[in-house]
Amino acid sequence: MIRTDLAMEAREAAGGDQIPGVSVVNDDKGDGVTVTRVKIFSPEGEKALGKGMGMYVTVEVPALVTNDRSTENKAAEVLAAEIRALAGDNAIRNGVLVTGLGNRMVTADSLGPAVCDALFVTRHIKQYAPQEIDERINTVSAIAPGVLGVTGVETGEVIEGVVQNVKPALVIAVDSLASRNVSRIRTTVQLTDAGISPGSGIGNKRKALNRETLGIPVIAIGVPLVVYASTIAEDLLTAANEKNEGSKRIPDFEIQRMVEGISNVNGAEMVVTPKEIDFIIQSCARLVSNALNLALHENMNLEEIQKYMS
Amino acid sequence: MIRTDLAMEAREAAGGDQIPGVSVVNDDKGDGVTVTRVKIFSPEGEKALGKGMGMYVTVEVPALVTNDRSTENKAAEVLAAEIRALAGDNAIRNGVLVTGLGNRMVTADSLGPAVCDALFVTRHIKQYAPQEIDERINTVSAIAPGVLGVTGVETGEVIEGVVQNVKPALVIAVDSLASRNVSRIRTTVQLTDAGISPGSGIGNKRKALNRETLGIPVIAIGVPLVVYASTIAEDLLTAANEKNEGSKRIPDFEIQRMVEGISNVNGAEMVVTPKEIDFIIQSCARLVSNALNLALHENMNLEEIQKYMS
Amino acid sequence: MIRTDLAMEAREAAGGDQIPGVSVVNDDKGDGVTVTRVKIFSPEGEKALGKGMGMYVTVEVPALVTNDRSTENKAAEVLAAEIRALAGDNAIRNGVLVTGLGNRMVTADSLGPAVCDALFVTRHIKQYAPQEIDERINTVSAIAPGVLGVTGVETGEVIEGVVQNVKPALVIAVDSLASRNVSRIRTTVQLTDAGISPGSGIGNKRKALNRETLGIPVIAIGVPLVVYASTIAEDLLTAANEKNEGSKRIPDFEIQRMVEGISNVNGAEMVVTPKEIDFIIQSCARLVSNALNLALHENMNLEEIQKYMS
Amino acid sequence: MIRTDLAMEAREAAGGDQIPGVSVVNDDKGDGVTVTRVKIFSPEGEKALGKGMGMYVTVEVPALVTNDRSTENKAAEVLAAEIRALAGDNAIRNGVLVTGLGNRMVTADSLGPAVCDALFVTRHIKQYAPQEIDERINTVSAIAPGVLGVTGVETGEVIEGVVQNVKPALVIAVDSLASRNVSRIRTTVQLTDAGISPGSGIGNKRKALNRETLGIPVIAIGVPLVVYASTIAEDLLTAANEKNEGSKRIPDFEIQRMVEGISNVNGAEMVVTPKEIDFIIQSCARLVSNALNLALHENMNLEEIQKYMS
Repeated sequence: MIRTDLAMEAREAAGGDQIPGVSVVNDDKGDGVTVTRVKIFSPEGEKALGKGMGMYVTVEVPALVTNDRSTENKAAEVLAAEIRALAGDNAIRNGVLVTGLGNRMVTADSLGPAVCDALFVTRHIKQYAPQEIDERINTVSAIAPGVLGVTGVETGEVIEGVVQNVKPALVIAVDSLASRNVSRIRTTVQLTDAGISPGSGIGNKRKALNRETLGIPVIAIGVPLVVYASTIAEDLLTAANEKNEGSKRIPDFEIQRMVEGISNVNGAEMVVTPKEIDFIIQSCARLVSNALNLALHENMNLEEIQKYMS
Repeated sequence: MIRTDLAMEAREAAGGDQIPGVSVVNDDKGDGVTVTRVKIFSPEGEKALGKGMGMYVTVEVPALVTNDRSTENKAAEVLAAEIRALAGDNAIRNGVLVTGLGNRMVTADSLGPAVCDALFVTRHIKQYAPQEIDERINTVSAIAPGVLGVTGVETGEVIEGVVQNVKPALVIAVDSLASRNVSRIRTTVQLTDAGISPGSGIGNKRKALNRETLGIPVIAIGVPLVVYASTIAEDLLTAANEKNEGSKRIPDFEIQRMVEGISNVNGAEMVVTPKEIDFIIQSCARLVSNALNLALHENMNLEEIQKYMS
Repeated sequence: MIRTDLAMEAREAAGGDQIPGVSVVNDDKGDGVTVTRVKIFSPEGEKALGKGMGMYVTVEVPALVTNDRSTENKAAEVLAAEIRALAGDNAIRNGVLVTGLGNRMVTADSLGPAVCDALFVTRHIKQYAPQEIDERINTVSAIAPGVLGVTGVETGEVIEGVVQNVKPALVIAVDSLASRNVSRIRTTVQLTDAGISPGSGIGNKRKALNRETLGIPVIAIGVPLVVYASTIAEDLLTAANEKNEGSKRIPDFEIQRMVEGISNVNGAEMVVTPKEIDFIIQSCARLVSNALNLALHENMNLEEIQKYMS
Repeated sequence: MIRTDLAMEAREAAGGDQIPGVSVVNDDKGDGVTVTRVKIFSPEGEKALGKGMGMYVTVEVPALVTNDRSTENKAAEVLAAEIRALAGDNAIRNGVLVTGLGNRMVTADSLGPAVCDALFVTRHIKQYAPQEIDERINTVSAIAPGVLGVTGVETGEVIEGVVQNVKPALVIAVDSLASRNVSRIRTTVQLTDAGISPGSGIGNKRKALNRETLGIPVIAIGVPLVVYASTIAEDLLTAANEKNEGSKRIPDFEIQRMVEGISNVNGAEMVVTPKEIDFIIQSCARLVSNALNLALHENMNLEEIQKYMS
C-alpha cells in the first residue's frame, strides 16, 4: 500500500473528487503560493483517506527549490498565517509548547530538533525576567524528546510528562513526513489539527499526540523529506501495468516481490531523498522556525525576533 | 568565592582534616586508581562544604590523560562498581532513567547528552520485544532534557514529567562539573547520592534533582571539564598574597576587581579548558557510558553489550 | 543507462561470462567473506565494461549488516591484505598519501573525509620526531581535498599539488560509490589499481586520479553507499517489460520519461539510501580506516595502533 | 613571555609610543567602529614587536558582543573595505585563493574552515560556466588544508601545492588568533599583509605563508578567540607584583612555576575562552565570510551574493 503522510496525496490516491466525508478548498495566495485545505469530517472520510478527522492544510511553494530568500520569507509568512488561523489567537497567547520530533542523529529525520534549535523560546524569560521583553512576546517553550530507539521512552510519554509540568495551552509538533512524490520535497508543508497518528512518518511514534491523549489542542507541522523506496517502486510498476492493457499484466505477487527487493534490505528501510538532503534540512528548518517565530508572537517581524534571540 | 562542584575540593578549601559533620575514607584500588569517599552527615558539614548531605565518591585516575584504552577500561570497571554500590542492586534491577544534563550545542557542556547517545538503552525492548534479549539485561532509559535557555523549561520540570510517566526506581544524572584545578580535567569523576543542587555546575539548573524533588533516589555523576577563569585568578592572587607577608598585601577589593576583569567579559562567562576539549568530551563520554553500561546490567562485559547495541 | 561504479556489476550488466578483455577469479575466504577479482586487460574489455584497464577487487561480507565487531574486524583484515597485495610492499614502505574524496557536509558523500579523520597519520612524526615511534611504522599522510562545488578547485588539482610537495610513492583515494543494487550498501568494498575516472561516483571529479595524471600508482577504495533512483527505476521497468512478452512492451521513450520523473527533481539528484545512512557511514569509515591502518604499517594490530593514536 | 598574535597588543606590551621602526595611525569610522593601523617598517620594529615587517590593521567593534545583525553588517562592510585596500583591486580581480587554517574538529580552532564553508566560491563557475554569472563576480577559490597533526602535511605544503595549480594572484589566510586580553574575543579582527609567521596562533604552522614562500601576496585575517591560560596568569601575577613595591616582590622563578601549573597540564595546553565559544565561532565566521564576499567581488551586496549562492 502506498505510504503517504499527506492528506492531499491520500485523497488523490483515493480517487480525488467526491469522497464522502472529505471536502477540499483551494486557495491561491499569488506569487506561486497555493494553499489547499482538506477537511476530513466523518468516519467515512477517515477510512477513505486513512487519516483521522480534522483539517489538513497544505502549503505549496514550488519556487522554494531555488533557495531564494525572498521566496522563503514569503512562504514563512503564509505558513505563519495558517498556523495562527488553525491554532487560534487564544491558544497562542496562553502558552505554546513546540515539540521537535525525530532523531537528531539521522539527517533525514532531524528536522524537528533542528526547528527547536532555531526557535525564539521565551517561557523562562517571561517567568524569571519579564521586564526584559516587550508585551508582544508570548510564552513559548520547545522540547526535542528524541526517538524511542534512542531513549527507550515513547515520544508521547515524554511530551505528556512535559505538558503536565509546563501546562501549555497548545502543543505544536514538528516532524519529517513521507510523501508519495519526490517533487514534494522542499516545496510542501502540511499543517493539521488532527495531531500525529502513531506509526506514521519516519521515526518511532506509537502513542498518538492529539487532543485526546494530551488534553489540549495539538497542531502538527509536517515537511515531506523522504519517499519510501517501496512507494516509488509500487507507483512505477502500477504505471507500467496500466500501459499493458489486456491479459499481460504483471501479477500482484510479482509486484510485491519486486517492491520488497528494494524497500527493506538487510534490515534497513530504503528511502529516496535528494543527495544533498543535509542542506535541504537546513533550509526547511529555517522556513518552519521562521514561520513559528512569526506566528507565536504578536506582530513581530523576523528582524525584531532576531534581535531578541541574539 | 571559589567555585567547585567537587566535595573533595570543597573539603580541602575548608581546611581539610577534622571538619565537623564530614568524614573521609581513602581507598587505593591499585594500578593508579584511587577512590575517596567524602561523607557529609550533618547540617554543620553541609554548611562547611556548601553541599548537601550525602556520600560523595571521587574516582581519580591520573593515567587517563594518556588516552590509553586499557587504562580507560579499568577506570570504567572501578566506576561501574562504585555506581552499583551507591545505587544498590534493587534500584538497578527495577528500572533506571539516565538523564544527560547540559547543552548539546556547547562543547564544554555537552557531556551529558553525549553519554546518553552511547548508552545501551533497553526499556522499549523489555516492553515490546522481551524475547529478543537475555535476562541479564535490566530496564534502562535515557533522556537529554536540554537546558533552560534553549527549551524554556527547567531541567527538573522535564525530568519530573518523564519520571511520572516512566516510573523508574532510580534516576542517574550525568553532568559536566566545574573544578578548582585544571589537573582534574580528564582524570576525575565524582559520584554522589546527594543529587544535583540548583545553580551548580555549568548549564542552567534551578530546581534540584534529588530524592526530595523526584521521590526516588538520584545519583549524580559529574566530570570536571572546566575551571572558571575567576577561580584561577583568585587562586593565583591569593597565592601571590601569601608570598607577601607583612603590610604589602594586595587589598581584597583590588583582587576582586582583577578577578572580575577576566571572568565575566562582555556578558560571557570565561572558562579555562584544554584547547582540545572536543576530544576530551569524547573520551569522557565513552568512559562514563561504558561504566554505566557495565553497572546497569548483570554481569555483562563491554563486548557483549556492544553486540546488543549494534 | 545503468550507473554503477562497481566493475563486478558492470560485468554482470554486460552479460557476465566470456567478455573479451575481461577475466574473473573468485576467491572464497571462508567465514562468509568472498573476494572477486575482475581484470580488464584490453581496450575491448574497457569498452564492454565502461571502465579503465586494471584490477578490480571486490570484497563482499554480507554479515557486515549485523554490525558485529568481530565480523567487521575480520573484514578489515581481509581488506588490509588485499590493499597490501594490490599496492606492493615497496610502495607502502616508501610513503603513502591517503586522499578522502567527497563532501564532508553531505552525509552520503562524507565517507572519504571520515576515513581520513580516523587514520593513523605519521608523516610529521617520522619527519620531526622519529625517535618517538617504532620502525614498523611507515610514512602516512592524509588529505580531504573537498569537492569542486565547495572549493572551486578540482579534486585532482589539489591532490596533484600535494603530491608534488609530499612526494609519496603511492596515492590511495577513498570514495563513496554508486551501486546498482541496494543490497551492496554496507556489505561491499571495491579496490582497484585503475584509479578513479572522472565523473564517476558521487561528488565532483573531472580530472582522473591515476598513474598517468599523478605519475605514481593510485589505488582507489570505493564503498557503495547509494543507488541512483534512476537505476532503480530503470531496473524495475526493464524487469516489468520482461514479463510482457509480445507486443505490449512499454516503449523506451515512456520508460525514459518515467525514470526522469523520479531521478532528477527540481534540480536535485535523487538517490536511494538506507534511512539511517548516518550510522552506516560511521561503520564503513571505521572498517576502511582500520583496514588502512593495518595495511600501511608492518605487522601492527589495531590495539597497538590505537595506543599510538591516543 | 606574553603570547599575542595582535601587533596592536605587542606594541602596547613593548611600551606603546615611540618604538623605532613602528608607526601607528588611528582611524575612527564612527558608529563605534575604530581602525588602527600599525606599520612595522624596519628590522628594529620587527624585533621590538616580535612580528614581521608589514601593515597590521586592527578593526575593533565592541558592539559585536550584542550579536546585533546591523552592527555585524556594518562591521563586515568596514572589514571588506580594509581587505580591499590592503589587497588592491588588481590582485582581487586576478583571482583569490582563500585558505581556512585550523582544525575543523577543535571548536576553538575551527574558524578558518567555517569561513571557507560560507564563502561564495566561483572559480569553477568562471571556468566551466561563465555565462551563468555576471561580470562583477571575480574568481574565488577556497581550501581548508587541515592541520599538521591530522594530515601529516604542513599547512604551507598543501597551500603551496594548490597555489602552483590554481595560480591565484593573492592568497588570503583566515585563522584563529591568541590574544592577550579576553575582551578582544568577538570584538576584534586583524588584517595584515605580512602573512602568517610559523608557530603563531593556535594550530600547527611551521612554514610561513607569505610573499617569500608563496611568490604572491598573502593577506592574513586573524580573529582572537582564545587567550592562553599562561598569559592570563602572567599578567595577573605581574600586576600583583606591581602593587608590591619594595623588596617583597614574588621572585620570577616562583611566577614561572605558578604559571606553568595552570598552562600546560597533563600534556594539554590550557586556554581561556567564553563558555559558549561554539556560538561565537559561528558569528565570527559569518562576519568574516560576509566581509570576504563583499570584498572579493565588484559592488555586490550580501543579498545579491546570497542569491547566487543558493
